[in-house]
Parts: sequence; structure tokens; C-alpha cells
Amino acid sequence: MPDGVGLVETQRVVVFGGDHPLTLDSGAVIKEVEVAYETYGELNSERSNAVFICHALSGDAHAAGINPGDDPNRPGWWDNLIGPGRPLDTNRFHVICANVLGGCKGTTGPSSNDPDTGRPYGLRFPQIQVRDLVNVHRALLTKLGISRLLAAVGGSLGGMQALQWSIDHPGEIDGALIVAASARLSAQNIAFSAVAREAIMRDPDFNDGDYYGTGSRPDRGLALARMIGHITYLSEESMREKFGRRIQDAEVPRYGFDVDFQVESYLHYQGQSFVERFDANTYLYLGRVMDYFDPFTDPIRVREQLARGNTGFLVLSFDSDWRFSTSHARDMAAELRTAGAPVTFREISSPHGHDSFLFPTPDYHQTVTGYIDRLAASAGGIAPRR
Amino acid sequence: MPDGVGLVETQRVVVFGGDHPLTLDSGAVIKEVEVAYETYGELNSERSNAVFICHALSGDAHAAGINPGDDPNRPGWWDNLIGPGRPLDTNRFHVICANVLGGCKGTTGPSSNDPDTGRPYGLRFPQIQVRDLVNVHRALLTKLGISRLLAAVGGSLGGMQALQWSIDHPGEIDGALIVAASARLSAQNIAFSAVAREAIMRDPDFNDGDYYGTGSRPDRGLALARMIGHITYLSEESMREKFGRRIQDAEVPRYGFDVDFQVESYLHYQGQSFVERFDANTYLYLGRVMDYFDPFTDPIRVREQLARGNTGFLVLSFDSDWRFSTSHARDMAAELRTAGAPVTFREISSPHGHDSFLFPTPDYHQTVTGYIDRLAASAGGIAPRR
Repeated sequence: MPDGVGLVETQRVVVFGGDHPLTLDSGAVIKEVEVAYETYGELNSERSNAVFICHALSGDAHAAGINPGDDPNRPGWWDNLIGPGRPLDTNRFHVICANVLGGCKGTTGPSSNDPDTGRPYGLRFPQIQVRDLVNVHRALLTKLGISRLLAAVGGSLGGMQALQWSIDHPGEIDGALIVAASARLSAQNIAFSAVAREAIMRDPDFNDGDYYGTGSRPDRGLALARMIGHITYLSEESMREKFGRRIQDAEVPRYGFDVDFQVESYLHYQGQSFVERFDANTYLYLGRVMDYFDPFTDPIRVREQLARGNTGFLVLSFDSDWRFSTSHARDMAAELRTAGAPVTFREISSPHGHDSFLFPTPDYHQTVTGYIDRLAASAGGIAPRR
Repeated sequence: MPDGVGLVETQRVVVFGGDHPLTLDSGAVIKEVEVAYETYGELNSERSNAVFICHALSGDAHAAGINPGDDPNRPGWWDNLIGPGRPLDTNRFHVICANVLGGCKGTTGPSSNDPDTGRPYGLRFPQIQVRDLVNVHRALLTKLGISRLLAAVGGSLGGMQALQWSIDHPGEIDGALIVAASARLSAQNIAFSAVAREAIMRDPDFNDGDYYGTGSRPDRGLALARMIGHITYLSEESMREKFGRRIQDAEVPRYGFDVDFQVESYLHYQGQSFVERFDANTYLYLGRVMDYFDPFTDPIRVREQLARGNTGFLVLSFDSDWRFSTSHARDMAAELRTAGAPVTFREISSPHGHDSFLFPTPDYHQTVTGYIDRLAASAGGIAPRR
């Protein structure tokens, strides 16, 4: 994609440490927090054009462009959304994406060294919540000299962060773009999460989370977790179209327990490639972050909080998403409206299931473009889209 | 249930052995096959009132009544359907249920001793197909002196057996009652099956299937497989109603990786209790039997076969079943009609997802009653329902 943001390097900055540790919502303390982040496009002199990208469970700070040494055909995970002339137009917006607290892609998480012991935290890393993820990213923005966002944009767990940020910190965000997300996981969502967690924790190589440096990791469990995840990310229709009942590399079934159907081969590959790039403990922590997310338990507080700011909400769902179906988005939109917030809700038609938020479906991208352009027109200091 | 079929003992009989081994559809041979079965109600003198129950993946021969020593409140798995005055009225019908080939509940399967080695087959048990399961049950009927069935009735994998039996052996079944089944698994179905299989086979205690007598079994993998299965057996709605986001034995979340939500506790229990009663290799073999099931690949043969008999079909689905949704049943009914068979198709409203076939929903039971009573009226020698 030669017309994207081009070469970009991931930066790292310590946002908590020394006399300023991170105190979590639970009261637990993390002494030092480093954050990995990338930026695309220039911050304008009014500092009115900052757009923060909140990533999903398996995402990272590398949302757009090409990292040095990387395959130019494999840009960041939201490259189709971010770049010159793209919906999040880097000719006009200063886009920031950072790895979340608890992550394994440069931001402090369970695989980081605990300063007290000099060894990786493992399961001694404290339990975290969406609001802790948000606070770490707010600290990053402070370091960057940004006190207000034109927009916070996120899919799935990313959308949850944008929602929590808007509620907890009124006045910091003009518009929250919440895509393929939920205000609370359903029993079925939690059930899938539980099975993935058990797959990891029952792996004999899990070793109570202390597998770092042992030469073995809970790869079997993490691969299984990812396979289960992928079933929920694709729609039944897209699986049928992509794979049907076709046999991998053959015309007739082999009748055995090895991988035989194409869909098995796909899942197998997804599981294997995931263990090479992701940490099992991070999967556990961020999975639990999603399970426990429930920001509307005190609706009166939500109403009071939102009234202190003027954040607008764009809530998007995809008709083939059965992980966070349209009913999740509709409920979220209704709760935000009840709390007095201005909400635009749209269900987008797309065959790609939960993964739809990663695809450049025209209707979806046009909706994002229209919404952010209205935010930009109100903010001032941002030239119109050319 | 004092008005059920009462005390019943599981019988066992060798149906293949000595000079008459079982030759599978694949050409492989199993030297000796024993079958566990139960019967309820009397065979009439015309031998016209036999009803065969085909069980699902985790089922067994104990479909109704109480086995000696068992809790009287825990009758067979389809007790609400089978008994005096029930839809499969044992005052009028001679009902037979048998454990399938490859099973672990008395019928020869991978946990049985291979006569050649004196040790359990494990993965040396040959791959089997639905038609092999059917042939073993046909051999049982021959032993019992029954050459024609008033009905073959089955849910899920049981329905697949009734379908295959009708196609392969025209003239043996008056009516096939196929409930919550499919004529072929979808890519998503196969995907779930693949993850369950990987969970078992990646368990270090699986030991390539040779875990019998070692003191360890792939319990973790089998429990995970069962947990995944249960998510697909319940509807999202029934999970929401049963569990919602409620915390187990507490009001507030404990924020940790242990079982916390009620739905997690439920799945955990289902997984643990399953490993106490089921064999992991049987789970693998029967899972694969379902994956490969595809009886309409040669529609011309199906048409010719069905034309040789006069089997009627009742195809039932449940509106909340997302494992084998109504589209599976509708496709099956359409293919049977195209093949010239008389088909009654009904979608039943029930909140219990795939498990609905086990629940005594009035509309469902009345539909079965009406259908089997018409079969009985045509068959002759069976008194009307009182």
C-alpha cells in the first residue's frame, strides 16, 4: 500500500515510575509502566486533531504503515482505515495508537519484569480493568502534550476502552467511535472466554504462569484458545463461503484424525501462528478485562459523568457479527441515550462476522468518515477533507 | 417417574464374531462386536411394533426407566419420550435402544480389547461411518428376530443414523423421525469439532490414544471438548436466562482467574462430570463420524434407494438450535423430497437450543405422537392409543 503512512517506528516511553507509580482502580500498584506507541500525521498547533486508536485483545500499537524491516505488503492492522485520504486521514489528523496495559507488545504486562524481583510478573501481575487501560493511555497523552482527543476509536475491546474513557473522563473526547463492541459480555461470550482460559491454564506447560525462560510455553493451550476465538470472529456464512466442506489439498476425505477439512487447516494455522507472536498470560488478563467490563452498573453516575462533558457517540455493529451482535450495540446505544448522550447508531451489512471491523467495507468506512469529519468541522483548526 | 417403564436391565449380545466378523464400509474388519441394548414394551405377534432409538454422541443404550442400583430420580436419557402413555408408548410399541459401534457404554469401541492383542484398541480401532453404526444395529435386530421397524427415531447423531438407515436399507423402516439433526455438518460445525478433537489429542495424557490402564487419562482435554460442546448445545437465550452475568455464590465479582461467573461454574461442572462417564477415544471417533457424514453426495443413488422402500420422514428442528439450525433440517427435508420421499417438516419453538430434543416440549411431543400413531394405524396389529 504505497499510499499509506509509510515507514513508522514504534516508540516507547515510561509513563509511570519512580515517585509516580500507577495505582489501579482496585488499589493495587504497578511501580513502573512503559508504553509502546506509534503516531501518524502531525499534531496541529491548536492540538485539536488528535485521534486515539484503542486496539482489541490481540492487537498492538502498530495500527498503520510499515515497521522497519517488515514486509511492505503487511502493514499495521488498521492500515485501511488510517492514512492520507483514508477515513482517519493523516493529512488532517494526528493519530496515536498504543499497546494496552497488560499487553505483550511493548507495554508493561505480565511478561514484563517486576522491578521488585527482576523476574517476569506472570500471574503476580495484578488484575486490571478497562479503566486502568484507559488511564495508562491518558498518561501517555499527557507525556505527548495532548489533553483532549478529537476522537477515540476502537473495535471490540478497543470500543470498550473508548466507552469507558468517555464515561470516566468527561470533556476529554469529542467523539467516541465504538465498533463491534459490547457494554457487557453475554453469558455465551463469557462461556467462550472461560473455555479459552481453561485451555491455557490446564496446559501442563503453563506452570502457573511462570513459563518465561523455561524453554517451554503453554503453546497448545494458547493455540486452542485462539482457535476457539477464531470460530467466534468469523460468521457462519463466511466460514461456509471460505471453506464449506472442502478437503485440504485433496478431492476426497482421508477419513482420519489429522487435519482434513480446509476449515480445520485454517484454524490450525491460526492457532500455530498466534503462539509465535502472543503471550498466554496477556491473553488471560485481557480476556478477564473483557469478562468483567460492565460500565453501566451505576446508571445515575454514568448520566452525571456524561453531563459533565459533551462527548458524542458513534456506535457501529455488523449484521454478521455473532460475537458482539447488533443487540449488544443497540443496548449500548440505548443506555447512552438514556444517560443523555448524543448517539448515532448504525448496523452495517458485512459478511465477515466480528472481524468486519478490520475490513474496508465502503458503507462502514463512509460512516466513519462522515462522523469524524463532522467532529473535525466542529473542533476548528482542521482543514476540510480534500 | 413412577409411571415410566420401571426397572430395566441393559443386555449384551455378540452380533459379529467367529466366522462372521464385521466388515466396515471402508473394507476394514472388526473381528468381534458386542452390543449393549435395552428394550421397553413387548414385541407384538405380528412383529410390527418395533421402534428403534438411535442415540446422540454422548448417549447410550439406557434411554428409559431405571437401571438396578440407580437413583430412581435419574431415569434414562429419553425417559420423557418413552413409556406407558408417552409419545413412544410402551403399552403399544416395542422400543429398543442400543449403544453405537465405537461407543464406550457396552458396545465394542476403541476402549474394547482387540482380540488380536488382548489390549484395548485405542487409535488402532478402525475409522467408522454412520452406515457402520447402522449395520451393527441391524445385526442386533436380526438377533432379536426383528426384520422391520415401525420407526427409527433419533436426535442429532441419532437422526443421522435414522436417515442413513432409511437410504441404505429401503423397506426396513416405516417412518424415520429425525430430530435436531443435519445431513452434513457446516464449516462452523466442523470447526467446533476440530477444536474439541485438538483439545483431546494435544492433552499430554492422551498418549496417542493408549491411555487405558496407565493411571492417567486425557481428562483435561476431554473436559474442554465437553465444555465447548455445551456452549453449542445451549442457545444464547437460554444461557442468558439460566446464568446471565451472575456470580457464583457471591454478589460481587472476585476479579481473578478462578471460576467466578455462574456460567463458568456450570461449564466446569459439565466438563468434570463428563470425564467420569465417557471415553476420550469414543469422543474422537464419533465426532469424526459426524464430520464425515454426507449421505446425499450421490442424489441419484439416494432417489433409487428410497424408491425401493416406502419410508416416510418426520424432520424436526428447534428454533433456538444453532448447532443444527432449522436451515439444516430444511435442507435435509428438501433433499428427501427431491429424492421422492414423503416428508413432514416442522420447526418447533423451544428455548433449549440443540438440547431441545431432550426436553418434553408439548408441541414437540404431540408432533411425535401424531406421526407415530399414523404409522401405527397403517402398520396393523397395534392397538390405538388409549
